[in-house]
Amino acid sequence: MLPRILDLASLRDLYGRGRLTPLALAEALADRMAAHPDKAVYITPVGREALRGAAAALMAAHPEPNSLPLWGVPFAVKDNIDVAGLPTTAACPAFAYEAAADAHVVARLRDAGALVTGKANLDQFATGLNGTRSPYGAPRSVFSPDHVSGGSSSGSAVAVAAGLASFALGTDTAGSGRVPAAFNNVVGIKPTPGRLGTTGLVPACRSLDCITVFSATVADGLAVRRIAEGPDPEDPYSRPIRPVSLPASPRVGILAEADRAFFGDTETARLYDAAVARLRALGAAPVPFDYAPFREIAALLYDGPWVAERLAAIEGFFGEHEAEVEASVRAIIGSARRYSAADAFRGAYALEALRRRTRATWEAVDLLLLPTAPTTYTVAEMRADPIRLNAHLGHYTNFTNLLGLAAIAVPAGLRADGLPAGVTLIGPGFSDDALAPLADALHRGAGTGMGVDTAAPIPGKPPGRPGGGAIHLVVVGAHLSGLPLNPELRRLGATLVRESRTAPDYRLYALPGTAPPKPGLVRAPGFGGPGLAVEIWALDPEAFGRFVAEIPAPLGIGKITLADGSRVSGFLCEGHAVADAQEVTGYGGWRAYSAALAKG
Amino acid sequence: MLPRILDLASLRDLYGRGRLTPLALAEALADRMAAHPDKAVYITPVGREALRGAAAALMAAHPEPNSLPLWGVPFAVKDNIDVAGLPTTAACPAFAYEAAADAHVVARLRDAGALVTGKANLDQFATGLNGTRSPYGAPRSVFSPDHVSGGSSSGSAVAVAAGLASFALGTDTAGSGRVPAAFNNVVGIKPTPGRLGTTGLVPACRSLDCITVFSATVADGLAVRRIAEGPDPEDPYSRPIRPVSLPASPRVGILAEADRAFFGDTETARLYDAAVARLRALGAAPVPFDYAPFREIAALLYDGPWVAERLAAIEGFFGEHEAEVEASVRAIIGSARRYSAADAFRGAYALEALRRRTRATWEAVDLLLLPTAPTTYTVAEMRADPIRLNAHLGHYTNFTNLLGLAAIAVPAGLRADGLPAGVTLIGPGFSDDALAPLADALHRGAGTGMGVDTAAPIPGKPPGRPGGGAIHLVVVGAHLSGLPLNPELRRLGATLVRESRTAPDYRLYALPGTAPPKPGLVRAPGFGGPGLAVEIWALDPEAFGRFVAEIPAPLGIGKITLADGSRVSGFLCEGHAVADAQEVTGYGGWRAYSAALAKG
Repeated sequence: MLPRILDLASLRDLYGRGRLTPLALAEALADRMAAHPDKAVYITPVGREALRGAAAALMAAHPEPNSLPLWGVPFAVKDNIDVAGLPTTAACPAFAYEAAADAHVVARLRDAGALVTGKANLDQFATGLNGTRSPYGAPRSVFSPDHVSGGSSSGSAVAVAAGLASFALGTDTAGSGRVPAAFNNVVGIKPTPGRLGTTGLVPACRSLDCITVFSATVADGLAVRRIAEGPDPEDPYSRPIRPVSLPASPRVGILAEADRAFFGDTETARLYDAAVARLRALGAAPVPFDYAPFREIAALLYDGPWVAERLAAIEGFFGEHEAEVEASVRAIIGSARRYSAADAFRGAYALEALRRRTRATWEAVDLLLLPTAPTTYTVAEMRADPIRLNAHLGHYTNFTNLLGLAAIAVPAGLRADGLPAGVTLIGPGFSDDALAPLADALHRGAGTGMGVDTAAPIPGKPPGRPGGGAIHLVVVGAHLSGLPLNPELRRLGATLVRESRTAPDYRLYALPGTAPPKPGLVRAPGFGGPGLAVEIWALDPEAFGRFVAEIPAPLGIGKITLADGSRVSGFLCEGHAVADAQEVTGYGGWRAYSAALAKG
Repeated sequence: MLPRILDLASLRDLYGRGRLTPLALAEALADRMAAHPDKAVYITPVGREALRGAAAALMAAHPEPNSLPLWGVPFAVKDNIDVAGLPTTAACPAFAYEAAADAHVVARLRDAGALVTGKANLDQFATGLNGTRSPYGAPRSVFSPDHVSGGSSSGSAVAVAAGLASFALGTDTAGSGRVPAAFNNVVGIKPTPGRLGTTGLVPACRSLDCITVFSATVADGLAVRRIAEGPDPEDPYSRPIRPVSLPASPRVGILAEADRAFFGDTETARLYDAAVARLRALGAAPVPFDYAPFREIAALLYDGPWVAERLAAIEGFFGEHEAEVEASVRAIIGSARRYSAADAFRGAYALEALRRRTRATWEAVDLLLLPTAPTTYTVAEMRADPIRLNAHLGHYTNFTNLLGLAAIAVPAGLRADGLPAGVTLIGPGFSDDALAPLADALHRGAGTGMGVDTAAPIPGKPPGRPGGGAIHLVVVGAHLSGLPLNPELRRLGATLVRESRTAPDYRLYALPGTAPPKPGLVRAPGFGGPGLAVEIWALDPEAFGRFVAEIPAPLGIGKITLADGSRVSGFLCEGHAVADAQEVTGYGGWRAYSAALAKG
């Protein structure tokens, strides 16, 4: 009765058609949780009674199916995030306390109708990327009882992948919201730092921590993130959301040959290359970039003063209970004591210097595509070499929050041995929404379904191309690709969307006395001409504004009707200016006219 | 022969009319420096020969007067900024070294034709706001041999105020680029952090340090800053400049009654109130705001882990030469040793929490007007109580760089005892240019000239109102004030600049079939009409871009020629659309036509 994977579209459909109720879901889910073999997924499952009670309360208060955005949607909460009335352990029994109130994001999700299934396991104090650093056991990848689940949000990713929750909250400081997504064939939404409020979170590194969403699809993760996000008055790192757009055909930074590091995992390398190929097919332009400064930033997180944030978060507790802390975690947090405040500032300087070195990359690319993790390990391997192998897992993730970036991790397919691997799109801060269409397309292209159900069709339609916030501009003359004024557009960050043609009732003139020669496009209702060849460029609103402000008379920007009937901002000419001008409509476009002119 | 105050306009005029040459200036200035009674202003004056040599070299390479933007303009350099071939002491003899190269900003200014007069005194390691913490003596206010000059850029401010330099470079971490401006009746330009490169600066707090400009006028300071600023590839804190505009009639945060602290100085309080009154007369709207979070941020700078930056900057030197450091400076820098890296991060968290509390203020105001310093002291008073009284001087400055803000300190007039006081305009990061017109108007309104010459007329004309980064838009029809579409403009943050009239060769039409009725403005070369009444609105580029993108055909945005011949972006109409439209040019404007229509 319950679908194998609890994606939002499937649940909504079942609810909407009366095929399922939240109460029935609660029963079935409690059965499934009880039957699930991996007992390390949840530290504190809420239990059948509580799940049933919450479902009944929801149905009483909101009887209409799907009358709230997350009506009856079950979710798991990483156990470093407070849920009122449940213990928060951070995977450290000595640290545990009963939460008096829901964390900011949990409250929002519950208000939207979502049902908490339990507190999910994690690497203790969210310190780790592998999932073995918990006294509550090591959850395993849903694809192998021998292999790590990834961490630190181990239980959260597994819960979604195993159909034990529709989505799950995780956290991500070094990569904890992404690595376990890769190892369990699910999506990991790592929002821009400050986008989701962190009140009610046990901090790892307060200046970097992000609450994240694991989900079956990109669309699910976005929907959940939009509900969870927004101003958190108690979180000083909560920031106003200022969406950043991406061009329609983005330039995507990919690993250069010298920067490829897969620690011998040729299969994950192959899946990364396949993702790059899909990217190209989607109209993006892969561009190898210099990963070195990013790698050096990544190294700062554990081999620099930022570990002191982990100590600052629990300094009182750690002073008294150091012996009760998991060995690797204890070594990492204890290492913070050797750093002085001067060291902390020196670390900040080093970060700024490296951030500056990354600028060249951001001038050449719009976003990055990286392996989520370069390889994976068995639990036994990880336990034998816990610090070094854990560092391998973060090779492509650790820098992200230090640079304030947004990321979405998506499945990339299965290795020959049947284990999943993932890739991550990383973009500028607040490009979260803009990354999503490409992330969704990459996920669909991977062809390995959702979580354990590798044959599941991904619900919904692939969304349109990125570039949401951009304004389209019809270019008629010297701003066309390759013509003299085109660099003005490129300098403003404009990107070519496509070639097109105007409606037939436009006439084109060569304006007298302009250099370089300029066209005058004038609408003549009733005229049945050839239509003029134009290009459509996309600019962000500010660049568009600056561009328009610089256009000299008699040209201006109005609306141009294209051959398909759509109306797009574009170049027009004042009527008086074409009175004595030569009409060149017959050439069918300015480029053809210019070429003819050049030939004499 | 040399003007009392060496403002740029006076020098340019003398040079341009052949009344002065750089060589003659060098001689006269060397005389003036030799005769100047306060020997503590410069630590290393370049000396007559070097000044003459630089002037001669400039005249040989660029013989045409004023052929470089700072042709023959003498400037002083705070002695924590490198000038090639001169010692950099940071006011600590044991620390001194000979600079191998010019600091980034010094090189730019010299390339623009400016002449270095010497290295100016400072509070040691730029640690202090009073000007007494230097073994090279305590420069005095040019208004009193008993009173402090302010610091740490003590010699720089005095050099400008005493006519020993046209401008001077200072630095500002806590307020060192502003407090001495107040005490010497000159302007202190404190750019947005990251705007001026800091390569070649001995750091105080690297994450906060700003190189600043002292000048006789706001216009001079802006001109110098524009030459000095720009990308500094060696400075990781150097940032791209993204100008921020301010509304034409800004809301200005002023001290609320409860936050007024002048430490008994009723005269400085009176001068502050007078500045607020001038602000109101200038069309700004004073709004009392909650200073508490700003005050708490200010306290973090010396009573928090940021002092560790001062230690980090010279840790090796300090370890070996602690005894050779000035007593107050030693106490401050030494206090850094008690802070751990965890403390540093806790400080960062405290700052973020306070930054968040300031957001309410920035929603209610566009900029702040504060006393530059609440009072002043004699050198004897300061030496008797050096830490506490120094803290008073920074009461209104210390928070600025921690919040990444821009500031301009201007003279506010003279107290009854003849000592000057100042006020500072503080705006969001990169509002530097937008603050300038109001700062200039406040300076002119103070009526106390420039530096020691309190009767000097301030050269140049008062600039227009703020809003520098804004794009002007000529509004013709339903977007005029009070007409139906005007709220669209206001929602985008547009502000009314002024009413105006088009050139006579425009015709106005009432377009058929639009609701609300829309005008079509069309240029008709040769037509001699009345000109049409229009309004000019200012929008930031992004808002302008969004506005243009929403304009439906047949309207668009081109360039409109106004009655004064200027060309401004504004509404135009495609020619075909007015073919069957009623001409309403005779009404002289859309408002008059609409009124007539309403009367029937």
